[in-house]
Amino acid sequence: MDRKTFNLTLTCKNRPGIVAAISNYIFETGGDIEDAQQFDDKNSGHFFMRVTFSCEKHDADIARLRAGFMPIVERFGLTWHLRSPLELRRVMIMVSKQDHCLVDLLYRWRIGELPMIISGIVSNHPRETYSNVDFGGIPFHHLPIDNTTKLAQEQKLWHLICETGTEMVVLARYMQVLSDDLSAKLSGWCINVHHSFLPGFKGAKPYHQAYARGVKLIGATAHFITSDLDEGPIIEQDVTRVCHSDAPDDLVRKGRDLERQVLARGLRYYLNDRVLINGTTAVVFAD
Amino acid sequence: MDRKTFNLTLTCKNRPGIVAAISNYIFETGGDIEDAQQFDDKNSGHFFMRVTFSCEKHDADIARLRAGFMPIVERFGLTWHLRSPLELRRVMIMVSKQDHCLVDLLYRWRIGELPMIISGIVSNHPRETYSNVDFGGIPFHHLPIDNTTKLAQEQKLWHLICETGTEMVVLARYMQVLSDDLSAKLSGWCINVHHSFLPGFKGAKPYHQAYARGVKLIGATAHFITSDLDEGPIIEQDVTRVCHSDAPDDLVRKGRDLERQVLARGLRYYLNDRVLINGTTAVVFAD
Amino acid sequence: MDRKTFNLTLTCKNRPGIVAAISNYIFETGGDIEDAQQFDDKNSGHFFMRVTFSCEKHDADIARLRAGFMPIVERFGLTWHLRSPLELRRVMIMVSKQDHCLVDLLYRWRIGELPMIISGIVSNHPRETYSNVDFGGIPFHHLPIDNTTKLAQEQKLWHLICETGTEMVVLARYMQVLSDDLSAKLSGWCINVHHSFLPGFKGAKPYHQAYARGVKLIGATAHFITSDLDEGPIIEQDVTRVCHSDAPDDLVRKGRDLERQVLARGLRYYLNDRVLINGTTAVVFAD
Amino acid sequence: MDRKTFNLTLTCKNRPGIVAAISNYIFETGGDIEDAQQFDDKNSGHFFMRVTFSCEKHDADIARLRAGFMPIVERFGLTWHLRSPLELRRVMIMVSKQDHCLVDLLYRWRIGELPMIISGIVSNHPRETYSNVDFGGIPFHHLPIDNTTKLAQEQKLWHLICETGTEMVVLARYMQVLSDDLSAKLSGWCINVHHSFLPGFKGAKPYHQAYARGVKLIGATAHFITSDLDEGPIIEQDVTRVCHSDAPDDLVRKGRDLERQVLARGLRYYLNDRVLINGTTAVVFAD
Repeated sequence: MDRKTFNLTLTCKNRPGIVAAISNYIFETGGDIEDAQQFDDKNSGHFFMRVTFSCEKHDADIARLRAGFMPIVERFGLTWHLRSPLELRRVMIMVSKQDHCLVDLLYRWRIGELPMIISGIVSNHPRETYSNVDFGGIPFHHLPIDNTTKLAQEQKLWHLICETGTEMVVLARYMQVLSDDLSAKLSGWCINVHHSFLPGFKGAKPYHQAYARGVKLIGATAHFITSDLDEGPIIEQDVTRVCHSDAPDDLVRKGRDLERQVLARGLRYYLNDRVLINGTTAVVFAD
Repeated sequence: MDRKTFNLTLTCKNRPGIVAAISNYIFETGGDIEDAQQFDDKNSGHFFMRVTFSCEKHDADIARLRAGFMPIVERFGLTWHLRSPLELRRVMIMVSKQDHCLVDLLYRWRIGELPMIISGIVSNHPRETYSNVDFGGIPFHHLPIDNTTKLAQEQKLWHLICETGTEMVVLARYMQVLSDDLSAKLSGWCINVHHSFLPGFKGAKPYHQAYARGVKLIGATAHFITSDLDEGPIIEQDVTRVCHSDAPDDLVRKGRDLERQVLARGLRYYLNDRVLINGTTAVVFAD
Repeated sequence: MDRKTFNLTLTCKNRPGIVAAISNYIFETGGDIEDAQQFDDKNSGHFFMRVTFSCEKHDADIARLRAGFMPIVERFGLTWHLRSPLELRRVMIMVSKQDHCLVDLLYRWRIGELPMIISGIVSNHPRETYSNVDFGGIPFHHLPIDNTTKLAQEQKLWHLICETGTEMVVLARYMQVLSDDLSAKLSGWCINVHHSFLPGFKGAKPYHQAYARGVKLIGATAHFITSDLDEGPIIEQDVTRVCHSDAPDDLVRKGRDLERQVLARGLRYYLNDRVLINGTTAVVFAD
Repeated sequence: MDRKTFNLTLTCKNRPGIVAAISNYIFETGGDIEDAQQFDDKNSGHFFMRVTFSCEKHDADIARLRAGFMPIVERFGLTWHLRSPLELRRVMIMVSKQDHCLVDLLYRWRIGELPMIISGIVSNHPRETYSNVDFGGIPFHHLPIDNTTKLAQEQKLWHLICETGTEMVVLARYMQVLSDDLSAKLSGWCINVHHSFLPGFKGAKPYHQAYARGVKLIGATAHFITSDLDEGPIIEQDVTRVCHSDAPDDLVRKGRDLERQVLARGLRYYLNDRVLINGTTAVVFAD
């Protein structure tokens, strides 16, 4: 079709008339609503919405659409984003020794499952750690770290994030705890995958904790980074069955499949403008 | 709150402006949209929508709301329903010897999970088959059946359905195949639970078929009845893991849990106006 | 068949020859092994086994079988049990206001899913709380409790447990925390269902905790009671998906299905001699 | 440890004394049983067993073990295999255009999840189709096929299988139907992944069939190839939830995750000697 699509996401204090105002505006501007999801949080009194609409090409000037939308923004006090799915976000992937999430994300990106531009791959391990992985021209940065260099490493990292125009950071089993300062800077645009079903087994070696506790399911969690370790808003979780005969190594193996999928699904939701932060939790308009 | 809630469901040929027209009408009539879900079927070109909105009590006259909505109905050629969740549907439950679904539905109804009035319980087995079950005043009807009495039994059944003002029929493991004629009459308002993951293992003894085929998961399916056996629109399905050591009796046991849940979820979706038929399939705006 | 079946469960320090000794003994005594599962815990060095075997009726004297087994018990230092599945255990069910687990256990018991004798139903609420439930002659005991009567109530309870020959206690959503003293007495023969995926959300109101944390799955856990609240060995767990629009009441509703199934499965494993305690965890030879 | 491990798998007509004979032999030959699973198929009267045992190195001569085992083989008429997990099987992977299963298997093989030697990769598409994939020295064979060359192509393929000492063939989304002749030759040592929950949606384009039927879950199946298309013994299956808004392309995307995992798990079971064929079904001693 000769139409262009846009994703509109917004949040505000709830009150009557929001949906009418938005759907009218889209209709009057020549748009057709293709999908819409909304959520009234009765608890906080906040309203969240995601609308996908399409326009004829000649109507599809995003600057014009944004300008025309301003009266509604002001009327309802909206926090909002209007994006074309064709404007890909620049995403930096950070990794440590274990590369299963990295390899998985690269594959999904290559076949078109993850609409993004990878602005760089950062590791605290050298390039040869991933000798079998084709980075296909994506810049790789080795930023080694130890107890004495953490501050300097994070400064280099931040510089890199800024310099590359990175809009989102993915911790794809990056096994370093970010400082409070960097966590705060990345708040809301950095996703981590934790290898447990949070809030169980926060912190180090969650599979060993799970083994010791004798749980019958293990999990993985994709969540936003905040300065409070493993406490950020949860985007996606999943679990798989284990039993008494599974040693920690078996949990690690079974967990790899979970981590890959949970991170990829969480990231895809984010890239498709399906994730809106709601205080300490996340509204996820899943597909 | 002193507000009244309504569920509006509708379908029509898709074209721009539907959402705007509906949300405007609701806003102008004093309503507040609490939830809305929609689906554009690109394949058929049909549009489906479910809107929950609330009004102040003095605005909440359903006849007035319906009358005011007529211009939109005509403009877009809508097939539509506007219901108050407080107007409970009258539901007839049909059962054969195995009563696990019946007992489960009665329990969920008692604790308020299933908003309905049970207009009657019909079985081809006598009341004493369910001697441990408290029917709590719900009329029970014993309609025995054999090869020679099928037609007459279905006539009695149809009479009962009409007489009791039944608006929906649930086959809760009713092990008789309905005639084409009765299936046609009940088309769109009769839900069956089939004890397999359809379209696998249609017809009789699906757990024995599953055992013979050596599947590693068994399933259950809640679907609308049509005159084409086990081919009606699917509302809900689920599966559970089995293994080589599970004999047919184990599959039957594990399957009971599936059947109960799948039927209860499917029925709940229906009673909450979340199910819209789309040709041979069902749009389910799940919660 | 004219054969009798026995379940043998055992644990000991691991060393070579255990399986050979046991299978020889069973063979020589006229038995046929129908199923066998074992687990070498490399971590603790302990060995666990469950064997189901059958004998011709004239060989199936349990006293004789036990006596003949003693040399192996002594040789390997076994902790062991030999039971006929026909000797049903006497199980006491404890419940508070919410009766969904109680009703579910009673139904499964009636249709033969749970091989046990129910020695009594105990509640801190009066009989009329469960007016729709047919207890079918099972003695009901109302043991009210408040802060000042806890000690006295537990004494009555313990007396009842002893007097009724109860061999296992099931806390089917019994919402009172047992004292350390009673927990210690019941250690290893009392199963609780906790309405969260432990170790997440221990203690009170786990669904409200889950809502506040914004998890994307909720769970339930069947575990042995110990004096350490919600820390006993886990027998069975399961989860179901939730999303941002699920209010605490929705989690409670979705959780009921989990609790019923997790408790019923855990109890069934126990009654079928499939659960062996291994320190702070449980070996579950699932079917 | 300085011990060597062996996997013994066997099947025979069931009769008393098998377990005793085997465990005695292992004990007398200096072995220690580390794991054992068994299955009495009451339906067919066949017995299946898998035993993992370890020996001191000086006892661990596989030829000696095999020779010593012969009297038991003869006494019970066993069909059996004794393998060291260190003797890796030679596996050929066949693929068509879609490479998600291939890439996944290669990754798992590299990190040690799949104990095998890849004897070759065969495709009906040329090497450049997989230009981003590092084959790491594994021979690649382009065997194009069309309606007129099928017979000749299969002859080349068979020649390649023999020449490379291939012991197992994996159809990792190889989109050609094998001839009856080749299927018969590969019977029992060729695993396929079918992109549906068999027996639903056999044959071509199963995701499109699933979309048309409006199912609420889609699945994938790993099964042995037989000359009866999509009817061979099932090794592993799994499903994932879909809904009315998932177009066929969405099912394809969600299905890729299923296919990868189901094939990898099925293959891993096979490589770990956990799969025994039982007529038209498979006994899978899962871990």
